[in-house]
Amino acid sequence: MKDLKQYIVQHQDRFLEELFSLIRIPSISSKEQHKPDMYKCASRWKELLIKAGVDHCDVMETKGHPVVFAQKIVDPTLPTILVYGHYDVMPVDPEELWKSKPFEPEIRDGKIWARGADDDKGQSFMHAKAFEYLVQTNQLPCNVKFMLEGEEEIGSTNLYEFCQQNIELLKSDIILVSDTGMIAFDIPSITTGLRGLSYLEVEVKGPNRDLHSGLFGGAVANPINVLCNMIASLTNEKNEITIPHFYDDVQVISSEERALMAQAPFNLDAYKKAIDIKEIHGEEGYSTIERTGIRPTLDVCGIWGGYTGEGSKTVLPSTAHAKISMRLVPNQKSEKISAMFQKHFESIAPPSVTVKVMPSHGGEAYVSPIDMIAYRAAEKAYTTTFGKRPVPTRSGGSIPIIAGFERILGTKAILMGFGLESDAIHSPNENFPLENFFKGIETIPYFYKFYAEMMKEK
Amino acid sequence: MKDLKQYIVQHQDRFLEELFSLIRIPSISSKEQHKPDMYKCASRWKELLIKAGVDHCDVMETKGHPVVFAQKIVDPTLPTILVYGHYDVMPVDPEELWKSKPFEPEIRDGKIWARGADDDKGQSFMHAKAFEYLVQTNQLPCNVKFMLEGEEEIGSTNLYEFCQQNIELLKSDIILVSDTGMIAFDIPSITTGLRGLSYLEVEVKGPNRDLHSGLFGGAVANPINVLCNMIASLTNEKNEITIPHFYDDVQVISSEERALMAQAPFNLDAYKKAIDIKEIHGEEGYSTIERTGIRPTLDVCGIWGGYTGEGSKTVLPSTAHAKISMRLVPNQKSEKISAMFQKHFESIAPPSVTVKVMPSHGGEAYVSPIDMIAYRAAEKAYTTTFGKRPVPTRSGGSIPIIAGFERILGTKAILMGFGLESDAIHSPNENFPLENFFKGIETIPYFYKFYAEMMKEK
Repeated sequence: MKDLKQYIVQHQDRFLEELFSLIRIPSISSKEQHKPDMYKCASRWKELLIKAGVDHCDVMETKGHPVVFAQKIVDPTLPTILVYGHYDVMPVDPEELWKSKPFEPEIRDGKIWARGADDDKGQSFMHAKAFEYLVQTNQLPCNVKFMLEGEEEIGSTNLYEFCQQNIELLKSDIILVSDTGMIAFDIPSITTGLRGLSYLEVEVKGPNRDLHSGLFGGAVANPINVLCNMIASLTNEKNEITIPHFYDDVQVISSEERALMAQAPFNLDAYKKAIDIKEIHGEEGYSTIERTGIRPTLDVCGIWGGYTGEGSKTVLPSTAHAKISMRLVPNQKSEKISAMFQKHFESIAPPSVTVKVMPSHGGEAYVSPIDMIAYRAAEKAYTTTFGKRPVPTRSGGSIPIIAGFERILGTKAILMGFGLESDAIHSPNENFPLENFFKGIETIPYFYKFYAEMMKEK
Repeated sequence: MKDLKQYIVQHQDRFLEELFSLIRIPSISSKEQHKPDMYKCASRWKELLIKAGVDHCDVMETKGHPVVFAQKIVDPTLPTILVYGHYDVMPVDPEELWKSKPFEPEIRDGKIWARGADDDKGQSFMHAKAFEYLVQTNQLPCNVKFMLEGEEEIGSTNLYEFCQQNIELLKSDIILVSDTGMIAFDIPSITTGLRGLSYLEVEVKGPNRDLHSGLFGGAVANPINVLCNMIASLTNEKNEITIPHFYDDVQVISSEERALMAQAPFNLDAYKKAIDIKEIHGEEGYSTIERTGIRPTLDVCGIWGGYTGEGSKTVLPSTAHAKISMRLVPNQKSEKISAMFQKHFESIAPPSVTVKVMPSHGGEAYVSPIDMIAYRAAEKAYTTTFGKRPVPTRSGGSIPIIAGFERILGTKAILMGFGLESDAIHSPNENFPLENFFKGIETIPYFYKFYAEMMKEK
């Protein structure tokens, strides 16, 4: 790659300023009030992609937030790479825990600090700049399409329909995604599996109004106590999920594959120290890597009910609520699991309360085979720029639309993530190390090169 | 009582306007921002008591909110009644459930709607107006002292010390309190027992920051799941509390007394209908009246953790919190129970989290014997104005300072409550029926009369 490192160094300040212009737009997809920001962010992406060298770019409407689509077709007979990313971000609360403002990016200690710095503005923007380099230096070896959606963090609600309606437009040989992480900067890795997701909200309702906990306490079911009992009953003492038939479809991983996984570099002490916990905790019979890689989970992502303000209030509340996420593994179907959860949760409610279960969103798990051309091209690209062969890993996270792409478009995805666990995505103080950002921009062009070469040889 | 009913009718609009002037001051004791309102409310009480005819009135400082003290000594050889009430109120949230603004009292359907309409501005103000009547018509048969505190809803934190420092000033033969309820307007009752209270806040802390529930879920303990498990384990399938030795000191009620209690009028269908529940729920082996009257409880008054906003966020939160109240019965000691809870809660925490238990406030249970003079005087007063003999009942609520009065001042209290269960104290849409308010003003003077007569005969 001619002058690649030099090109990056020469333009690095501009790259950052352009990225910051995206970050500064608070494109929180889950909040109605940010609707105008979604359009602002999509338009800014359009400007930046045109500047980077695409033939044309459109902000395309959906029933929800718009999709940014762009392409550069150099030769219809060459392979086509579809770059997928998302311009929406997670909410920022609890905001008081942020050391700098979430939408005012700052560089400190060699890292970019902001919501979206990694997930996924920082990571998806690496592609725009890798593409710019290839175009500006006349080295683009294949056709490129860009698709940036605004609903990844809320389950890509409308992107499934968008894909169905634009199968021709989105036709490609491989979908290239940077929305995952790597083990460490000195242990490059490629994500070969993602978990699926079922996300639901539940409400337990007792009396028709908040009651005095003295006058009624002991005689009337307390919805918070009941919700706690119900949630507690969803797992057993082995930390297994107790919903009947929950594990029926779980892909059983062979002991050979588990032995292979156990060889991946993992330091338990460093893991515990990084998040400051004394002990890990999870399903009996599985290692930490297996617990996030190949086993499903049930986590309460939020709970609320009764008086939560300063001081005390003796109240027996009318309702209690929780948001529950289940991470799923290959062969588990999100809709089936959500329905299973709903039926079970309703069935365990005592007669003293009424229960509402509201499925929110979900998606299927995804597996990326390590013998496909795109994997081999990515492996060679990392080896070139990082100086060592990347490790295949399974992520515990979910990008439900990736399985959707395979189902609707018939196209596999390669997950070239450059994030680190310490990037605190979805958390306060999200960050993205500058070296990862620039190393991503340096690695991606090699993927284009090796992928085009290997496709030609095929 | 000369022209008593006529006096009330003649002055009823002024009585209400004066009460409303107290209600309009948002004297929420648990919120620092309302500190100035506490002084405003105390001053307003002082004006109203002076207007009603006390010899003098002081707003007396404590380490917390001030105490209003007033007295009228007609003859030191006559008995002295100490009227106790509180001018502080509970928080109002969830405010969106109020049909009219909590601090703008409205009369609708024959009721006063506002925070404090019953608890305890409405009820304590009946005493000011009953006293006014006796003074204005020269019928006051004994000495009267008033003590109104501003911290009842937060555990009367500083009133204990205030009592210790003012034993002489507060000397009386009986403490008269209207801060409880009656069974129904057509079933007058006198509260002969109150439950004690232990109120605590707990925090479960897992990782040092909110984590991505995909990348970490399954391998790191989720503080919300853990908190739910811990809370669920505090009660068993018989709805008994599982804290070791929790029931050791509970006063065992004889089967004779339980049989007597069972005769109190109680309509289970009406009870369920009033709060719109399908089934009651409580400790096995006890009736609803017993569950709130003679048995201790454990209720979660508030719980929060993780993402509780609109939409979804897949997060494994760093912390989860709950506010827990335990209602206690005679012989259980609040401090002992709080310490027992703390020790037990810390002991059941898994090693994957750290737990903090912060005792908030508490107080002892209280029993008022039905053979004391004050009870007989109160019984005769209700019989005179309601036309039927009141029923002795045990309330599930707590007024911890009442047991404190007995311990520090050596004085018993008589609980002449005129509230109804439907008054929704501590809830949105608190209310107080006008007929209860005026009936209270009518009944209290008779208590003075009969109490003074019976004390003379003693």
